Amino acid sequence: MASRRVATRALRVLVLHGPNLNLLGTREPELYGTTTLLQIDAKLAAAGKRENVRVTSVQSNHEGVLVDRIQDARSTADGILINAAAYTHTSVAIRDALSAVPVPAVEIHLTNLHRREEFRHHSHLAGVVVGRVEGFGSESYLLGFQGLISLLRARQR
Amino acid sequence: MASRRVATRALRVLVLHGPNLNLLGTREPELYGTTTLLQIDAKLAAAGKRENVRVTSVQSNHEGVLVDRIQDARSTADGILINAAAYTHTSVAIRDALSAVPVPAVEIHLTNLHRREEFRHHSHLAGVVVGRVEGFGSESYLLGFQGLISLLRARQR
Amino acid sequence: MASRRVATRALRVLVLHGPNLNLLGTREPELYGTTTLLQIDAKLAAAGKRENVRVTSVQSNHEGVLVDRIQDARSTADGILINAAAYTHTSVAIRDALSAVPVPAVEIHLTNLHRREEFRHHSHLAGVVVGRVEGFGSESYLLGFQGLISLLRARQR
Amino acid sequence: MASRRVATRALRVLVLHGPNLNLLGTREPELYGTTTLLQIDAKLAAAGKRENVRVTSVQSNHEGVLVDRIQDARSTADGILINAAAYTHTSVAIRDALSAVPVPAVEIHLTNLHRREEFRHHSHLAGVVVGRVEGFGSESYLLGFQGLISLLRARQR
Amino acid sequence: MASRRVATRALRVLVLHGPNLNLLGTREPELYGTTTLLQIDAKLAAAGKRENVRVTSVQSNHEGVLVDRIQDARSTADGILINAAAYTHTSVAIRDALSAVPVPAVEIHLTNLHRREEFRHHSHLAGVVVGRVEGFGSESYLLGFQGLISLLRARQR
Amino acid sequence: MASRRVATRALRVLVLHGPNLNLLGTREPELYGTTTLLQIDAKLAAAGKRENVRVTSVQSNHEGVLVDRIQDARSTADGILINAAAYTHTSVAIRDALSAVPVPAVEIHLTNLHRREEFRHHSHLAGVVVGRVEGFGSESYLLGFQGLISLLRARQR
Amino acid sequence: MASRRVATRALRVLVLHGPNLNLLGTREPELYGTTTLLQIDAKLAAAGKRENVRVTSVQSNHEGVLVDRIQDARSTADGILINAAAYTHTSVAIRDALSAVPVPAVEIHLTNLHRREEFRHHSHLAGVVVGRVEGFGSESYLLGFQGLISLLRARQR
Amino acid sequence: MASRRVATRALRVLVLHGPNLNLLGTREPELYGTTTLLQIDAKLAAAGKRENVRVTSVQSNHEGVLVDRIQDARSTADGILINAAAYTHTSVAIRDALSAVPVPAVEIHLTNLHRREEFRHHSHLAGVVVGRVEGFGSESYLLGFQGLISLLRARQR
Amino acid sequence: MASRRVATRALRVLVLHGPNLNLLGTREPELYGTTTLLQIDAKLAAAGKRENVRVTSVQSNHEGVLVDRIQDARSTADGILINAAAYTHTSVAIRDALSAVPVPAVEIHLTNLHRREEFRHHSHLAGVVVGRVEGFGSESYLLGFQGLISLLRARQR
Amino acid sequence: MASRRVATRALRVLVLHGPNLNLLGTREPELYGTTTLLQIDAKLAAAGKRENVRVTSVQSNHEGVLVDRIQDARSTADGILINAAAYTHTSVAIRDALSAVPVPAVEIHLTNLHRREEFRHHSHLAGVVVGRVEGFGSESYLLGFQGLISLLRARQR
Amino acid sequence: MASRRVATRALRVLVLHGPNLNLLGTREPELYGTTTLLQIDAKLAAAGKRENVRVTSVQSNHEGVLVDRIQDARSTADGILINAAAYTHTSVAIRDALSAVPVPAVEIHLTNLHRREEFRHHSHLAGVVVGRVEGFGSESYLLGFQGLISLLRARQR
Amino acid sequence: MASRRVATRALRVLVLHGPNLNLLGTREPELYGTTTLLQIDAKLAAAGKRENVRVTSVQSNHEGVLVDRIQDARSTADGILINAAAYTHTSVAIRDALSAVPVPAVEIHLTNLHRREEFRHHSHLAGVVVGRVEGFGSESYLLGFQGLISLLRARQR
Repeated sequence: MASRRVATRALRVLVLHGPNLNLLGTREPELYGTTTLLQIDAKLAAAGKRENVRVTSVQSNHEGVLVDRIQDARSTADGILINAAAYTHTSVAIRDALSAVPVPAVEIHLTNLHRREEFRHHSHLAGVVVGRVEGFGSESYLLGFQGLISLLRARQR
Repeated sequence: MASRRVATRALRVLVLHGPNLNLLGTREPELYGTTTLLQIDAKLAAAGKRENVRVTSVQSNHEGVLVDRIQDARSTADGILINAAAYTHTSVAIRDALSAVPVPAVEIHLTNLHRREEFRHHSHLAGVVVGRVEGFGSESYLLGFQGLISLLRARQR
Repeated sequence: MASRRVATRALRVLVLHGPNLNLLGTREPELYGTTTLLQIDAKLAAAGKRENVRVTSVQSNHEGVLVDRIQDARSTADGILINAAAYTHTSVAIRDALSAVPVPAVEIHLTNLHRREEFRHHSHLAGVVVGRVEGFGSESYLLGFQGLISLLRARQR
Repeated sequence: MASRRVATRALRVLVLHGPNLNLLGTREPELYGTTTLLQIDAKLAAAGKRENVRVTSVQSNHEGVLVDRIQDARSTADGILINAAAYTHTSVAIRDALSAVPVPAVEIHLTNLHRREEFRHHSHLAGVVVGRVEGFGSESYLLGFQGLISLLRARQR
Repeated sequence: MASRRVATRALRVLVLHGPNLNLLGTREPELYGTTTLLQIDAKLAAAGKRENVRVTSVQSNHEGVLVDRIQDARSTADGILINAAAYTHTSVAIRDALSAVPVPAVEIHLTNLHRREEFRHHSHLAGVVVGRVEGFGSESYLLGFQGLISLLRARQR
Repeated sequence: MASRRVATRALRVLVLHGPNLNLLGTREPELYGTTTLLQIDAKLAAAGKRENVRVTSVQSNHEGVLVDRIQDARSTADGILINAAAYTHTSVAIRDALSAVPVPAVEIHLTNLHRREEFRHHSHLAGVVVGRVEGFGSESYLLGFQGLISLLRARQR
Repeated sequence: MASRRVATRALRVLVLHGPNLNLLGTREPELYGTTTLLQIDAKLAAAGKRENVRVTSVQSNHEGVLVDRIQDARSTADGILINAAAYTHTSVAIRDALSAVPVPAVEIHLTNLHRREEFRHHSHLAGVVVGRVEGFGSESYLLGFQGLISLLRARQR
Repeated sequence: MASRRVATRALRVLVLHGPNLNLLGTREPELYGTTTLLQIDAKLAAAGKRENVRVTSVQSNHEGVLVDRIQDARSTADGILINAAAYTHTSVAIRDALSAVPVPAVEIHLTNLHRREEFRHHSHLAGVVVGRVEGFGSESYLLGFQGLISLLRARQR
Repeated sequence: MASRRVATRALRVLVLHGPNLNLLGTREPELYGTTTLLQIDAKLAAAGKRENVRVTSVQSNHEGVLVDRIQDARSTADGILINAAAYTHTSVAIRDALSAVPVPAVEIHLTNLHRREEFRHHSHLAGVVVGRVEGFGSESYLLGFQGLISLLRARQR
Repeated sequence: MASRRVATRALRVLVLHGPNLNLLGTREPELYGTTTLLQIDAKLAAAGKRENVRVTSVQSNHEGVLVDRIQDARSTADGILINAAAYTHTSVAIRDALSAVPVPAVEIHLTNLHRREEFRHHSHLAGVVVGRVEGFGSESYLLGFQGLISLLRARQR
Repeated sequence: MASRRVATRALRVLVLHGPNLNLLGTREPELYGTTTLLQIDAKLAAAGKRENVRVTSVQSNHEGVLVDRIQDARSTADGILINAAAYTHTSVAIRDALSAVPVPAVEIHLTNLHRREEFRHHSHLAGVVVGRVEGFGSESYLLGFQGLISLLRARQR
Repeated sequence: MASRRVATRALRVLVLHGPNLNLLGTREPELYGTTTLLQIDAKLAAAGKRENVRVTSVQSNHEGVLVDRIQDARSTADGILINAAAYTHTSVAIRDALSAVPVPAVEIHLTNLHRREEFRHHSHLAGVVVGRVEGFGSESYLLGFQGLISLLRARQR
């Protein structure tokens, strides 16, 4: 990925949540915890405020919508935080969108995928993101956010 | 799946038809028969009336729409009858939706998948449904419906 | 399978139960339920009486016996309902017998095979039966019986 | 595919562009060239005018939209030119739509898929299209268009 | 296989026919021809008479019976001609019996197994027989018989 | 396996020998040794007498017979010692019988299977037995017997 | 292969020997026997004389030469007897030639391929020949010749 | 492939036809059509005349001859059009020749390889050619020729 | 992992660096950056001081030493941060040690393993750690440290 | 393994315990039981005393140490009892050491490896040991010891 | 390979170069160096002169020619040095020739095959040559020559 | 590997011998010859003296020790000659060490690995060494040494 200049203005981060994540916190808490998606987005917004980063969050069950939003990120975001959920394992379209758009992305998973079914061990996105965080529950988002910010800051310098 | 109480009111069943099933009956009758999707839905509605079950049918070519409807079933249905067609073989998102929603589902196929191409032998949904019926043409829906009802009735008792 | 004429006499259905199914109901009820094989055969006989179908049931732990009985079906049955149990996964001989005999067969399984060990996901019989029902416990037999009857009736017309 | 009569009126060709192709020409020119999708569509329209063929072009990032459009082609097109991009490798639904609709289709790829990542070597569509052209950049579309037209003309005779 | 002395008395050949071969000639003639198993055994008996060879033929649908008969061959036969049919692909027990008994065996198939389903391409017996003949219909038996005799004669010398 | 009470009476052990083991000692001594099956059974009987254990031995070349005997063990044995020979690698029916019957079983092999052909490296039974002994020739039986007894005694306490 | 009429004139058989078979009899007699290729051809010529069949034999180490000769067989032979040796396992070109030419072929091997290295277990030719004989040493040629003749005679009738 | 200068003189294209293509048009017309290789070469020559391109055509059943001719192309051709037929799937030597020679090549197939046997789905050449055309019958050659010419012209500019 | 009580004293974290990580910063900076292992340990120590966590760091090229240290952690650490480097892909012993010791561990990688050779895509440790961080260079350690601490704090509450 | 003479002096057995076995009895008792390694060694010493066998036990987490000790066994032991634990599945070096040293070895496992994770089903050592015992908990050591002794005694005779 | 006596006369070595090696030095020097095949042959001739070895070199793009020459070596050479290039990966015929001819061969590769495409990692020849040298550019030939000579000299003694 | 200047001083070569090679010459001479490791080191020292190269030899059964020594080579050697023995097939750590250290390495094997067990066909080191020599017994070391020296000398120029 060639060097790209980012002005010293506030950074902009797009947070993408994939299919079924809207059910978070209300279903299967023994697997995914009791934190809701709203609470995660609120925590990210708060972290963004502390770090002077504008955070926009989107959830969709539609693969095409996620592709559309990644494409839009070209002009609206400096970094992407993505938990593609089930599409992690089946979507080449999301992979290609992340690859076509020169905005660095970080891949997030609430659970440690390698402790689940074998078909969840493979990620189509792993080859096109800069970093990956998995297994810390909702904390995964905050760690990934922090990693993404420090990476973007390093590129600003 | 933990025990859940269903009142002695009329049962509600959501019937989901996946991609290309809207063409049923008008195309490739040697493979899929001449019954249309409308006729299948009419038969299911009639069977529902006899059994005091409210039946709602939805067809979509969009994976995301099917995920949305399965999520809605949490508050609107007691059981799901799903023929995911092509998405049977490619959609982890539909699997995750069925798994996240505590509404028992039955998997339906018009044809016997094992007499077709090898890539149709694998089903992402098989591991999260309670029962499966394949190979009886449109009759598959009625058998699956009956199996689902008897299963829901057994849980009511 | 070429067209074959069936007179308007009572239909005859052979029910075949494979190895270890004689233990049904008395062992591992959490997996297979508490219904015994005798009870299943009684239910099928009752359903047969209602539908004017003569039902004959056989259980054997011997692969060769099952092959023999399928061959006999040429002159003694109009349809076969078969739960080959363990032989589902290992017997090409039963597959060949079903294939050599022009009597349509329906494959039955008490449990959803795809929620069990991986070596149970493959069925040697799937490619030679007309339909398959799995996962409804003893109800699987009744659904498969009903599907087989409606198929045989359709051929009579 | 059974013979179908096409009147001596102008032929109609539907051009389908899959996910991320809307970014063409503005991103990764070293891989995909500098020609934009608009320019490709203009070239195809010009070629259509010369050949008395009406060309309609559609781009979508949504698998379901592509399925919908292929279904519509039954009454609105005589041939389909499709570059399904990422969905080439993951969509059985698009394959089934092409298979269900009796309109011949030609598969197009800008790059030679076999010189890219291994997961791009497999195409779900290859088994249901009549011809395939890959590796000539935007010229692939024009060659595929020409092949499709000569095939449709041969069927008219 | 160590050298073993065979007196200049008449040779004895055991012919073993596996599961479903009793149906031969009466079913699926387009695949297996119209010759019955009785006719094949008669031809082998006649050939035996010409060659001063005593021929004994056995058919069974039971794997265990075939194992028993191979074991008996130690004291009752100088060579074995075996068409194990479906057990060719699934029986290690028959393989072990052939291997444990110092009587040379020839493997016979009516059809060319490599023009049929892939699961028929593998033979458990191939590694323990001396020769194999496949694809000549009932003639396969006669060729295999002839090959076995010439092999046994060569050992007598 | 749920706890089961065994009275302080003499323990009963069923010894099952699979296909071709009746040939033991008279054939291929370089591989299997010169001890006959009779001698092994005599040694086990002697060991049983010393340990106050009633030993019953059965050999069969028939998979179905082995399944039948395992089922009978429910009421007639406290433990099973099984050398399934060739069926080790092909029989799911024997596996299911061992699994359905709440009598602990120990798997025995005369030879070290991993020093033989690759198809002998996989055992269908390994997943349902409590222990396994292989490679000590006829001594394997005595070691397995001793292991089974000490396990049963531990459960009595 | 459609029916083709062959006049009552003498049959013509082309015998093709693949690479390294010219060394037969002089090298590795423990594997291939001491019969030379000349002796095999003489035996086939003698058998041909007895049966009123003209036999032509060709050996080549060149894949292309074997393809050329199979193509020539269209006008010069009624049947082909082929031992493609090493090319059995690597040549799709020979397979395609045999498939393109409407002259029935029989595949011959001196040794039982399944008792040798695993890469010799697969034959590219098996799917396009009518019959196969392996493992009888030079006798394999005579058995295959006889099978081919009886097949051609059956077609003449 | 580094840039290479081509003078504004007439372009030279080498057309290579692999094994069995000399039989084209006279054999298996339902698969390959009725056009002969001579007719294809004539059409290419005519197209070459219109485009000011000198076309040389060679057919061979010998892998080595095809390698030789590709090597010669270094000094005698500006582009290669190759239908390697069966060698597509087995020849690394042709692949290496195409790779060693800095003359761009286009891969041609009459049929859509993905609708044929699985062993035809893999092409050794795909990774070293610039473009590929398959499935348009003899038209494939003309489309490939046109694609090759436009590619060579673009390089001249 | 059963609940375990951790007193409100300072937490203790063991940092383990696997083989070749001692070369960090001085070799292959384009892949691993210019930060040395000393600098990483210093940053972790500083972070520990801020968070009231005692940090101990160990590097070893010896698999057995890493196993020894993980075992010691039972009585000397509350959490483990491990970058096993090459042993990630080959060591079941380290996996077993992490599994045997009831101290939660976090897996760290400097680079995104999925953008490297395929043999680095599989981790033996993934199935026994609580979380994983990869791809952020030396920042991966700090993110993993932070994730581990928040997890341990959550358990203290 | 060629015959080697062992004098009538006391036999010497080396017992090798692989990585993490030092934790035995204190950790995960539900999987490995409550017996400690010290207790196992004590039992083996006692059994050795009864049998006039000198027993030496070594535990190490280091693959190289285990290799060293096996090499030393050439002059210090008559037999080896080895539970290589995790190195069972990953160490070719231990396999080679056992193979290079003419001291017979017996492989021990506390648990039945085939009831655990799939990567534990393969043993690098199985092909070079004389016998194997698995699944009897600490009793496995005593059975393996007894088998080894009877084997060594048989060689003395 | 049994011992064979070689008189004290000058040794004779046949050097075989496979397809495309005639282009060496003039093409892709970054991969294969700038040394031409003529120069390599000259170096080998010079080395031969120093060692009293007669060296004969042959290059061919034809698999059959290489087979022919290996066969000739029986009477004309004492050792073979072979770089089969592309045929290394596809030719069983060359393997069989090397195996049939009792002249020891050494396999040569200019490049380290394991640093190239995966399909070059497998060699059909590796199993039948005595030694292999790869990765030293043209020096590979000289090292292989030296190894072959020392091996032949050792056999003379 | 970037160019690195080596002064015209004496070259230094580190020779690394992996596990079990200390037993060389005293064990399994039919496989490894009768030359001891001491003798090989002496020959290499002598060759070094002739070539003005300082040779240091190390043998270890410990993977970690080999990694340590490769790392040390950065400042103490100009080239590495490594026979990693069993670690060839299992050690990514040694691979990574060779890759991290800018000292060219040559891989040595006494035997031709491809004539041994299949698990010895794969080498983790092959992808990071410059050249490989296998199959010449102890001569392999001398050839590899010579190849390494000529390579280092070429770089000096």
